[in-house]
Amino acid sequence: MSWKISSYNINPVQALVDESLFFTGNGYLGIRGNYEEGVPETQKTIRGTYLNAFHDSVPIPYGEKLYAFPDTQQKLLNVIDTQSISIYFGEGQEEERFSIDKGKFSWNGRYLYLDKGYSERSFEWVSPLGKRINLNFKRLVSFCEKEVFLQKVEIDSDNFQGRIRIVSTLNGNVSNFVDTVDPRVSSSHAKLLRVTDVQQTENISYVECETTYTKLRTACAASYQLSHPFNRIDDLTADSVVSEFSFQLNEQVTFEKKSIFVDTLRHGEDLADSAFGLQTRLADKHFSHFSKEQKTYLDDFWNDADIEIIGDSELLEGIRFNLFHLLQSTGRDRFSNIAAKGLSGEGYEGHYFWDTEIYILPVFLMTQPELAKKLLFYRYSILEQARKHAKEMGHHKGALYPWRTISGSECSSYFPSGSAQYHISADIAYSFVQYYLISGDVSFMKEYGAEVLFETARLWADTGHFDGNCFKIDAVTGPDEYTCIVNNNYYTNVMAKHNLLWAVKCYQLLESTDAQQLTKIRLKIGLENDEISYWQKAAEQMYLPYDERLEINPQDDTFLHKAVWDLEHTPNDRFPLLLHYHPLTLYRYQVCKQADTILAHFLLEDEQELGIIRNSFNYYEKITTHDSSLSSCVFSIMASKLGYKQKAYDYFIETARLDLDNTHGNTKDGLHMANMGGTWLAIVYGFAGLRVKENGISFQPALPEKWQGYRFKVKYQGRKLQIEIDATETKITLLNGSALAIRVFDHTYHLKKETPLIIK
Amino acid sequence: MSWKISSYNINPVQALVDESLFFTGNGYLGIRGNYEEGVPETQKTIRGTYLNAFHDSVPIPYGEKLYAFPDTQQKLLNVIDTQSISIYFGEGQEEERFSIDKGKFSWNGRYLYLDKGYSERSFEWVSPLGKRINLNFKRLVSFCEKEVFLQKVEIDSDNFQGRIRIVSTLNGNVSNFVDTVDPRVSSSHAKLLRVTDVQQTENISYVECETTYTKLRTACAASYQLSHPFNRIDDLTADSVVSEFSFQLNEQVTFEKKSIFVDTLRHGEDLADSAFGLQTRLADKHFSHFSKEQKTYLDDFWNDADIEIIGDSELLEGIRFNLFHLLQSTGRDRFSNIAAKGLSGEGYEGHYFWDTEIYILPVFLMTQPELAKKLLFYRYSILEQARKHAKEMGHHKGALYPWRTISGSECSSYFPSGSAQYHISADIAYSFVQYYLISGDVSFMKEYGAEVLFETARLWADTGHFDGNCFKIDAVTGPDEYTCIVNNNYYTNVMAKHNLLWAVKCYQLLESTDAQQLTKIRLKIGLENDEISYWQKAAEQMYLPYDERLEINPQDDTFLHKAVWDLEHTPNDRFPLLLHYHPLTLYRYQVCKQADTILAHFLLEDEQELGIIRNSFNYYEKITTHDSSLSSCVFSIMASKLGYKQKAYDYFIETARLDLDNTHGNTKDGLHMANMGGTWLAIVYGFAGLRVKENGISFQPALPEKWQGYRFKVKYQGRKLQIEIDATETKITLLNGSALAIRVFDHTYHLKKETPLIIK
Repeated sequence: MSWKISSYNINPVQALVDESLFFTGNGYLGIRGNYEEGVPETQKTIRGTYLNAFHDSVPIPYGEKLYAFPDTQQKLLNVIDTQSISIYFGEGQEEERFSIDKGKFSWNGRYLYLDKGYSERSFEWVSPLGKRINLNFKRLVSFCEKEVFLQKVEIDSDNFQGRIRIVSTLNGNVSNFVDTVDPRVSSSHAKLLRVTDVQQTENISYVECETTYTKLRTACAASYQLSHPFNRIDDLTADSVVSEFSFQLNEQVTFEKKSIFVDTLRHGEDLADSAFGLQTRLADKHFSHFSKEQKTYLDDFWNDADIEIIGDSELLEGIRFNLFHLLQSTGRDRFSNIAAKGLSGEGYEGHYFWDTEIYILPVFLMTQPELAKKLLFYRYSILEQARKHAKEMGHHKGALYPWRTISGSECSSYFPSGSAQYHISADIAYSFVQYYLISGDVSFMKEYGAEVLFETARLWADTGHFDGNCFKIDAVTGPDEYTCIVNNNYYTNVMAKHNLLWAVKCYQLLESTDAQQLTKIRLKIGLENDEISYWQKAAEQMYLPYDERLEINPQDDTFLHKAVWDLEHTPNDRFPLLLHYHPLTLYRYQVCKQADTILAHFLLEDEQELGIIRNSFNYYEKITTHDSSLSSCVFSIMASKLGYKQKAYDYFIETARLDLDNTHGNTKDGLHMANMGGTWLAIVYGFAGLRVKENGISFQPALPEKWQGYRFKVKYQGRKLQIEIDATETKITLLNGSALAIRVFDHTYHLKKETPLIIK
Repeated sequence: MSWKISSYNINPVQALVDESLFFTGNGYLGIRGNYEEGVPETQKTIRGTYLNAFHDSVPIPYGEKLYAFPDTQQKLLNVIDTQSISIYFGEGQEEERFSIDKGKFSWNGRYLYLDKGYSERSFEWVSPLGKRINLNFKRLVSFCEKEVFLQKVEIDSDNFQGRIRIVSTLNGNVSNFVDTVDPRVSSSHAKLLRVTDVQQTENISYVECETTYTKLRTACAASYQLSHPFNRIDDLTADSVVSEFSFQLNEQVTFEKKSIFVDTLRHGEDLADSAFGLQTRLADKHFSHFSKEQKTYLDDFWNDADIEIIGDSELLEGIRFNLFHLLQSTGRDRFSNIAAKGLSGEGYEGHYFWDTEIYILPVFLMTQPELAKKLLFYRYSILEQARKHAKEMGHHKGALYPWRTISGSECSSYFPSGSAQYHISADIAYSFVQYYLISGDVSFMKEYGAEVLFETARLWADTGHFDGNCFKIDAVTGPDEYTCIVNNNYYTNVMAKHNLLWAVKCYQLLESTDAQQLTKIRLKIGLENDEISYWQKAAEQMYLPYDERLEINPQDDTFLHKAVWDLEHTPNDRFPLLLHYHPLTLYRYQVCKQADTILAHFLLEDEQELGIIRNSFNYYEKITTHDSSLSSCVFSIMASKLGYKQKAYDYFIETARLDLDNTHGNTKDGLHMANMGGTWLAIVYGFAGLRVKENGISFQPALPEKWQGYRFKVKYQGRKLQIEIDATETKITLLNGSALAIRVFDHTYHLKKETPLIIK
């Protein structure tokens, strides 16, 4: 039951949301859950197929362009459409086309199988003239062959034996979706792909396209298989191949379409060669083959990643749904990462943000460390561009990671809540450290992490300055986008401190274990001795704002002196505030879009006493709107830490079904990937209280009242642990790997493979 | 000598600057000093004719458009070109066209007559084939008939008696200038005018155009007069009328072109009727007539406005040049004001800023109060839009004046140094108060000023908030654009305090003298009793930041905690900083583009003790780049106040010849109007130490060392005073009006008409 996401609603509003919810992907290729047969003309749809990182670069327009504002912005492109399959039912002179606004449905259902890795639409349709047709559409994007997208259509009827025409299209005449009002969605440059080649061999249709500015190319080759004898006509236009299959229906017929996507980022210059080659190699492999492979792949995945909740199947559904879509959206090569909406839609133009490092990476760190490593490698691969960006922004040294990007250049066109979010560089540094602590992978740290840590530390050294004995960082924006360009944002400063300290630690690590590698890096980046002592000093003297009266950490130097926004009297229809107030209005008040100081207290909890963390939580909770989907999960985690059990649960519920229930109202533009990661964090870091620090792994397990129990697995330094928590006990089992010390509440235990740790 | 601005340089770089320096205008019409015959194709030119406030409205592009960002921006349009007059000299088969890159000049000179109000180009040109031609071009934009532009060409030769063709054009196919790099100049939308009518009657050519978005229309009608018999051919194209006059040169010939500009803002819908009507009415009036009128007008003007400096003719030239161009640029109707570049160029898109109120209006207040009143009336006329703008920006009540505008709507596309400069509303309120104090015009205050003061006071009441006992104003930008969106900008707060206090005073004035008018306003704007007491309280408790350690007023709450920009080691070619650093870099440092706190100390000097004013001057002077042309004059005034005589003079010199010497390098885009006003202020408020306050008028006269003396006149509450200062004495004469008390240094004198006040 809870491995299957279902929808029985075909009204146009839900259909648009379902396009995101039922998307299928594999980190390389993502295909929205659009109807094969299309939608009625009056119905809104975002028909989309995306290849992770496949983008064009478009000019950014400015009314007033100041120095070093980026000239261009990258944009994930909607690529060749191979979803379209229309079906016509004919008898004598008349012919009826299957469409959701014609006739009626005796029953219908739409499903996404989280364990099997495919989606399905299944229904009995009664045509206007009374034909009763059983239709079943399945689609699968293969985790094992990243280029492959399969569609399978089954048709049957108990009162119709006539003529069927299936018209299947491979169409390069595609555009991106635009919305001129919502700043979270692109407002222009819809049409950027141009078809450069259309071919047809015996069974294979082929369309190739090129982008306007980057000149990247992509191609799709489609082949077909029918269970029935048929007539086929292929019609080549300038932009597409339309293939028509006609036959008489006498028993159930099965129609399969196998589409292969390739692009010049991953497949070299000769795309036709790659695509036709793959079609040939996979010629005798069909839906049944790929679905078997898919199941095996997912069995492995769920074996590591599944969280079981006993006693709440709706929630369980939400959590599994989130994990599945994270898996579907995560890039696995050096070109790609996880877009804010994954591969499920075009919101935020397919850009990669800090969401990856702070909200999603920990999930993979603990369950799929190889995937996590690939995500970090992506950041290493754009380090050179981050160095360049730091220069553009007036720095003498160091690397400033772009706030939003695909291929590495800054794509923010509104810098106060874009480039000004310097913290992303510390976030990335933090994630390298987390990977190191959780995986114990020293060689990755030496090879890649060290250089990233050094260059980001340099950024802070250059950005901040000593004001008396305090190291201060001015004119940056923290995570909370309702307060921009401030001095000494607590989050930024404490993360920069961590960044600087770990750069020093990493330097010492190299110095004592691999002098040769250290020399290599030093020469490469021109690192001077006095820089390391300066990092140490800056970290030690980092100014972390503290308010003595309230005994909290102020979000920045002046935050607490502003007027408090009157949330109580703000009408519901004015949320999210950013869509109803000028930024200057928002900046004038104490009002937070999302967790900011609270997030810092989670990521670096040892920097403050528990009392300050508690006071801060109580304070910020009152002024946070959670207009960002990155907020509730953090509040849940910290409520757990503080023993606010009901709050922890309430915030958690917000996160777990955010997209399934479309609570932010914009799931149509794509799924909220960071929040999906946040759900996992809220359980593992929140309820179970997991922490990994230099001194080891620890838990503070708790059980939400509504649950009978829950269990999950984590990987830690080559081991696999299973944690089971119910009303009576916490049981921690070392499934494999060597014995280790583990801290639960205030005790340290020695955990061995044979003897699970049971704490009553 | 010092009534004549001269240029003898025709190199392409200086020619472009001279286009601005030699512009002619009258507040309605402005025509750049372009060459009649055009420039060689390779030479850059900004060919421009402008009608004050005649604009189109164009969409503002955004990469990311947030709530309430303005959709459109106004843009002063370059209108119909009537400057073009080409002259051909023919003999037999060959014909030579006069052009500055052909042949050579035996001598040449270009002049602007500040006393006569016209400009002139005069030279002997030797053509490639050796013709020696004396050419003289005069042009005059009439102060008495605002629609009239006259051109007069005189041609003579002592070795050429052949055929002359004069080709004169009236051309509606015009564009605006664009520069994609400099944010101070428009980067797009060059072509917005479309020709809608072209006509030719016997002597009158006519072209009418319409804008693309606002659908405003303008027309120009040109007529001709020649001293010689001639053949004429008029060629009408879709966009223009080209009129060719040919004749034999045997004695000096005079060619006159009279162009009449009209537009639908000022002349109603039937432009042809207006333009032809004016041509008819003025048919027998030619250059000699208009130049006589012009002289009379200017005699009056200089009689009131002239500042004489004895002993420095270069400076005198600079000051007169500035005053003359101010007069040429000042709008005199409810549609228009003074653009940042006046009518001399397209920089800042012809927008009106606070420059008018703070830098230019005082000049007119003291010399041409009727002009000043018109400028204030313009602000009253856009009050309704300012109310709307306040609403858009999230305020419940009040009026927020647009930072930059033509017809009243906010045209800033980069709000941190645009809309965020809330102080403009207090600046406008300040100028209404200044007008009241200087003119004593109570009825204007009651009729217009009161409503402006009340609505702007409301803005501050709504923007600020009480933090304990302090009234604070957060998230605004002060005058200094190198530090944006700050809390408690000293300038803003102290100006808001003044605004609030004067709203209360004005309310009390109305209450005690004109209850009926008060009721009218109260009903109109829904003013409540408790608002007035709130204004009073907010003003009294206004927070004015003060730093005890440095004993200065910090620019804002956190300014002094930032790192100090290393100006000493910043290479010269990195100025102005805004063209070489990202705004975030600038925001991170203590570095000022312009006077900010220092300006507040000038405008409201009684708010602080002299010691604090002195310390502040010393502090900010070290970190101010004067990258804004609005800065040096203020530093000069305050240096005068503080007795820093040499500094006062040095800063003054910066301002006095800023455009004449093109010290900011962008005079080509237009003259720096605010700085021109600032020059006058630096003398009258600076050296002479004039102040007008509620308790009367006062002087603190001083004489710069390099001068033998200086004298000027000011108008004050219906009187005219002459102030003469030399090395031995200050002499103040009441030229007309009733006796008054006047304070000089620390003594109060009673000044009567018959007896000048002489202070040794």
